[in-house]
Amino acid sequence: MKKFISLAAAMLLATGAFAQQSLFGGAQLVSPEVNPDNTVTFRFQAPKAVKVEVTGDFLPTVPFEVPNFGTFDMPGKAELKEGANGVWEYTTPEPVASEMYNYNFIVDGLAVKDPSNAYVQRDIANLMNYFIVPGERTENYVVKDVPHGTVSRVWYHSDVLGKDRRCAVYTPAGYETSGKRYPVLYLLHGMGGDEEAWLCTGRAAQILDNLIAAGKAKPMIVVMTNGNTLHKAAPGESEEGNFKPYNCGSFDTSFEAHFKDVISFVDTRYRTIKAASGRAIAGLSMGGLHSFTTSLNYPKTFDYVGLFSAAVGVESQNTEGQIAPEFYQNFDAKIDRLFKNNPKLYYIAIGKTDFLYKSNAELRAKLDQKGYKYTYLETEGGHIWRNWRIYLEDFAQKIFK
Amino acid sequence: MKKFISLAAAMLLATGAFAQQSLFGGAQLVSPEVNPDNTVTFRFQAPKAVKVEVTGDFLPTVPFEVPNFGTFDMPGKAELKEGANGVWEYTTPEPVASEMYNYNFIVDGLAVKDPSNAYVQRDIANLMNYFIVPGERTENYVVKDVPHGTVSRVWYHSDVLGKDRRCAVYTPAGYETSGKRYPVLYLLHGMGGDEEAWLCTGRAAQILDNLIAAGKAKPMIVVMTNGNTLHKAAPGESEEGNFKPYNCGSFDTSFEAHFKDVISFVDTRYRTIKAASGRAIAGLSMGGLHSFTTSLNYPKTFDYVGLFSAAVGVESQNTEGQIAPEFYQNFDAKIDRLFKNNPKLYYIAIGKTDFLYKSNAELRAKLDQKGYKYTYLETEGGHIWRNWRIYLEDFAQKIFK
Repeated sequence: MKKFISLAAAMLLATGAFAQQSLFGGAQLVSPEVNPDNTVTFRFQAPKAVKVEVTGDFLPTVPFEVPNFGTFDMPGKAELKEGANGVWEYTTPEPVASEMYNYNFIVDGLAVKDPSNAYVQRDIANLMNYFIVPGERTENYVVKDVPHGTVSRVWYHSDVLGKDRRCAVYTPAGYETSGKRYPVLYLLHGMGGDEEAWLCTGRAAQILDNLIAAGKAKPMIVVMTNGNTLHKAAPGESEEGNFKPYNCGSFDTSFEAHFKDVISFVDTRYRTIKAASGRAIAGLSMGGLHSFTTSLNYPKTFDYVGLFSAAVGVESQNTEGQIAPEFYQNFDAKIDRLFKNNPKLYYIAIGKTDFLYKSNAELRAKLDQKGYKYTYLETEGGHIWRNWRIYLEDFAQKIFK
Repeated sequence: MKKFISLAAAMLLATGAFAQQSLFGGAQLVSPEVNPDNTVTFRFQAPKAVKVEVTGDFLPTVPFEVPNFGTFDMPGKAELKEGANGVWEYTTPEPVASEMYNYNFIVDGLAVKDPSNAYVQRDIANLMNYFIVPGERTENYVVKDVPHGTVSRVWYHSDVLGKDRRCAVYTPAGYETSGKRYPVLYLLHGMGGDEEAWLCTGRAAQILDNLIAAGKAKPMIVVMTNGNTLHKAAPGESEEGNFKPYNCGSFDTSFEAHFKDVISFVDTRYRTIKAASGRAIAGLSMGGLHSFTTSLNYPKTFDYVGLFSAAVGVESQNTEGQIAPEFYQNFDAKIDRLFKNNPKLYYIAIGKTDFLYKSNAELRAKLDQKGYKYTYLETEGGHIWRNWRIYLEDFAQKIFK
């Protein structure tokens, strides 16, 4: 067996694992470590550093004022203390609530990923380490020993945009063998995201796996499109944006205009329920606007609509250069038309300190005034993924029932 | 339009992009930049740093001696120079050959990812930035405007191991609509990898997309299993290994023993050609051993076998505790049996300085002595991904024809 182990060591050497440790002086630290009392310890080896800090959304936030928009919650910082062998350490003074968190180290002013933690999330072009504190809140975010759906990256053609585009598709466990037809949730990301966002930071596959296994959500297909129509795909996944900073944003109604191509593709490729009763559309922030406008402009298409911190309130913003400007016009009449069809669920969720709180309150007032029923969830905090995971978990349990 | 742009800015703020720049002082640097003459410039902002280096496999290697195994090529280092605004810069003195490269910065001894580059590869638990220098070598590594296959993460059950396991599956463009049956390449990773390795560092989807689009490879399904049978899935993708260091290695023949479950699953789930003529198995390093042993122990199953820097030469290493010890026994008789079936391609590829060169030469000598035909490719360099991408590109063009 000895020669075996040596062979193994040599292969590890050769693949660079040893090389990195040897070159970079990294030891096998555990960081972050969630302790039995749910305090969290961060460790970082930096013998020459003068100051090592950790910043992340597990720490109390620091308010950041932006004129005309209000106050944003920025992640706070905490200082690590140097111990033996140049290993710096910080343990939270209090237990950390069950949640999924992002963090980075700051070493003498320099943002540094945690070399002991291979788990990173990408938001636009920024990478952040993440960790999960187990507990009630994250029960559906962690991978459990339940039947897992299939997650695919799939290309479809859009005649409206004149190009192929990439989306992510979740098919529930059993889809391939059941022969049944399934309902479809179209799940849209926000301005900084792409077709990977809900899978990565949103934990959509884990949430759906766990809810479906527990019988809390109906087995469903989830289609995650790319909301930035300037692009075909997430950075690096198409010939356009290889290794370049990502160009964000899509408020020109081209996303809504091309959505008929998405539905047509999904209804052809997958065994779907091809009716409003088998379709939900939901999204966060810009994706909330897209869900709002898409559901208004494709009447009788979706029986379930979810607005998560939605960027509503853009009706008056139409200008030149739009592929289909009518998509952002006559919202009042379109709302009447939508509710004439008695949608089974119209769902609005937002955080108390979200900068979009006011525009969502205006939308609610309008619905109230017209006597249209909707489900409303208000949570703590602002315009953050923490809330969007909560909204997905909640919304997924309310649709297709 | 102004309010629109402000709304966009606010959403970016809220999603943290601005927060990070504000907190960490990062400017919008371009790094790495491949210049028109194919020199490459690296930039890093660190006003307080004393020394900034870059290390990566684009630099001349440094030999690293390991007793009994030989010399390994470790990535070299180069120093950046500080310019205005604390921006450090290094440009390679010579054009860099077309290739896909890894790198990291070292700031005062500390390994730091490039904040200007969101592209990282994971190898075991290490993250490395990467970049591609365009040219002939990387023609098939970059994403092109060609029809793209579907890449899925799929769970299958193994009766032999008594658990569900995760694999990655590439189905070629047109698979879903053609109604045709396709051949299957089983593509196995090395010791440090998992079912993500060939997709991430190996560029398998890009290589197959491009070769198939150019008519150089037959449309095929590619199944990428996880070779570490201790695990169900890559780190974080199952309930076992969440956010923990990854336990490597699988030389106990349990991978080979469970492979019949893989084939059975794939032939049931996908429209495959269920015959040896429609099956290839290939792998790198440990996956090369797995390809060697699996093809020997499942006679008449694979007409195409690819050994990429294969860890052959383990016959005498059997010890207790193996699920199916016979899988690593009687290789000579099994080789005779395999070649009696006239495999259409037996392919051996290795780098001139690979530490496994000698054991592969011994295998070739044995085949030569017995008069068994095989295809042999010898490349520069050692036990590195650069070679494995070349071997896949070559092998994929030689199978199913």
